[in-house]
Amino acid sequence: MASNIGYAASDASAPLAPLEFDRRPVGSEDVRIDIKFCGICHSDIHQARDEWDGALATNYPCMPGHEVAGIVTEVGKDVKKYALGDRVGVGCMVFWGADETRGVDDEQYQRPPAIYTYNSVDPQTGKPTFGGYSDEIVVNEHFVLRIPDSLPLEKAAPILCAGVTTWSPLRHWNVGPGHVVGVAGIGGLGHMAVKLAKARGAAKVIAFTTTAGKKDDALKLGADEVVVMSDSADVAAHAGSLDFLLSTIPEAFDMKPYVSLLKHDGTLVTVGAITKARDGDIDLAAITMSRTAIAGSLIGSIAETQEVLDFCAENGIGPDIEIIPIDQVNEAFDKVVGKEVRFRYVIDNSTLPKAGS
Amino acid sequence: MASNIGYAASDASAPLAPLEFDRRPVGSEDVRIDIKFCGICHSDIHQARDEWDGALATNYPCMPGHEVAGIVTEVGKDVKKYALGDRVGVGCMVFWGADETRGVDDEQYQRPPAIYTYNSVDPQTGKPTFGGYSDEIVVNEHFVLRIPDSLPLEKAAPILCAGVTTWSPLRHWNVGPGHVVGVAGIGGLGHMAVKLAKARGAAKVIAFTTTAGKKDDALKLGADEVVVMSDSADVAAHAGSLDFLLSTIPEAFDMKPYVSLLKHDGTLVTVGAITKARDGDIDLAAITMSRTAIAGSLIGSIAETQEVLDFCAENGIGPDIEIIPIDQVNEAFDKVVGKEVRFRYVIDNSTLPKAGS
Repeated sequence: MASNIGYAASDASAPLAPLEFDRRPVGSEDVRIDIKFCGICHSDIHQARDEWDGALATNYPCMPGHEVAGIVTEVGKDVKKYALGDRVGVGCMVFWGADETRGVDDEQYQRPPAIYTYNSVDPQTGKPTFGGYSDEIVVNEHFVLRIPDSLPLEKAAPILCAGVTTWSPLRHWNVGPGHVVGVAGIGGLGHMAVKLAKARGAAKVIAFTTTAGKKDDALKLGADEVVVMSDSADVAAHAGSLDFLLSTIPEAFDMKPYVSLLKHDGTLVTVGAITKARDGDIDLAAITMSRTAIAGSLIGSIAETQEVLDFCAENGIGPDIEIIPIDQVNEAFDKVVGKEVRFRYVIDNSTLPKAGS
Repeated sequence: MASNIGYAASDASAPLAPLEFDRRPVGSEDVRIDIKFCGICHSDIHQARDEWDGALATNYPCMPGHEVAGIVTEVGKDVKKYALGDRVGVGCMVFWGADETRGVDDEQYQRPPAIYTYNSVDPQTGKPTFGGYSDEIVVNEHFVLRIPDSLPLEKAAPILCAGVTTWSPLRHWNVGPGHVVGVAGIGGLGHMAVKLAKARGAAKVIAFTTTAGKKDDALKLGADEVVVMSDSADVAAHAGSLDFLLSTIPEAFDMKPYVSLLKHDGTLVTVGAITKARDGDIDLAAITMSRTAIAGSLIGSIAETQEVLDFCAENGIGPDIEIIPIDQVNEAFDKVVGKEVRFRYVIDNSTLPKAGS
């Protein structure tokens, strides 16, 4: 009889459904975590539905979830950082990709990259990694984050992906005082980007959305201005105004209007479009004429993940969340795709059925 | 009877042919230059054949040429920098785009941008600007460059576009000691990029070409290694090896193999592809996974143009050129497109017919 349970997709078109399995035994460097909450990231949907290709193609069953918050229930004999009862989190990575990258910073950019929390192969077991839509997780302590006491677990969960994925580029490109910052796509990631850019002291944060109905919401998040992309006059009025534009748009999109927003020497960083650009999406002439750049950024390092958790605690910011029971996860997926969520669904993992019941 | 003559295209499919016209009278800040040599840039061909669109669509007649070297024959009363007999050059720009950008550096990136040497409208006359495939040119002294005595005029000419267009990004991105630098496209611009990157002290310069026959040529230019892009094993062997890759490829191209060459945090800068990227040319996933960037860079400022002329003189480097008479210009265009030139055709402007003859 299996000891663990989670929600997994059995193929690209199947809804998520309960799946019993066994987490590996706690090794000497491992921490076992009783998962209390798990955020629903748009990546979970892409992966469960096999909407990426190449190295990111989905292996089924696929159990998503990389915004994991819970309590330590067991530690290995060599674990130094954590003790029973600690409030902890797990983000997108759970192990080093190879011995030679062990301990190297920027884990996500190493070759081979770190092992992802789901849809990777765990080199310790040879089995697929299963994410946080589950009752427990066992993770090497290096990849476990400490959740500050002032941060509720359910608020901490989305910081572990949505938070750090937007924090990392804001930090790497030194976005802060004096900068006019755009955020494109005001969803789970984008709403955190608005809050984080404001808290980092940006001179102005402008939200760009395709959903007119999000205008008031974006202002409430702290955006100084909101531009609805269908309002081409307003887009034109903001041409050449941004030092930095963070796009969280989770699919291929026409990048030309967004590039037009950049100042000379400005940078558009995409964190969400894990796909090829389509014909005409990018105008190299426009980039050339303005010495602008299109760059990408992948989640964030473990050090950056701890940093953004601490930053959020210190600055009293966190995601806007809606807590749902696990049996609403499929409906929640559809609402995320339909841009109905404001702004992050978080699963209450206590609503999972019990393994073996 | 007209006083000047040049070679111009009357429409997109017409060969260049003699055209008589009049340069404007020398104004108080102007310099009149007797053109001795003019380089043939791939841009001249794109423009003469109307291969760009939008703001760069061609107005006929089109008289190209923005690698102009000659001797000062007349100066306006307020000209301070130049005197009769001075050895001078003109690059891609001839005037400010507006009063409010007068005197502002990075002339090419101002809004409106500076007036181009050809195919712009001269705000002083309301007429089209005509380039250096002609006997004389009249230019505001700010846009005139001094050619160091040690630099032959025919060698200086290509530095005014091919030189500065590759110099500017190498300088802006601080390419130098410690860097492994790639140059993609070993033509007029690329061959200068190899020489300039070496002279700036790059640890290694690797040439990437689609023309196997250019391998030996690229090594002679000073490249430490040459990779022929059709050799996919060699491309793979260089994956993740470049800090910086300058692409001079003058058209849309599949950028994926080139992006694969970049290290984490590396940058690909395109200076030649004044066009939209096509379906799948750019993989945003690959850029995201490596935090790499695709950026553009447009020619260079007037200050940078003087700088690269001086740098070339000091370092004893210059383009590899082949001097041709003006009546071979159409044949030369075809050879540039056919990648047969090694590496820059330079027109001997003394071979122009005389105006009024």
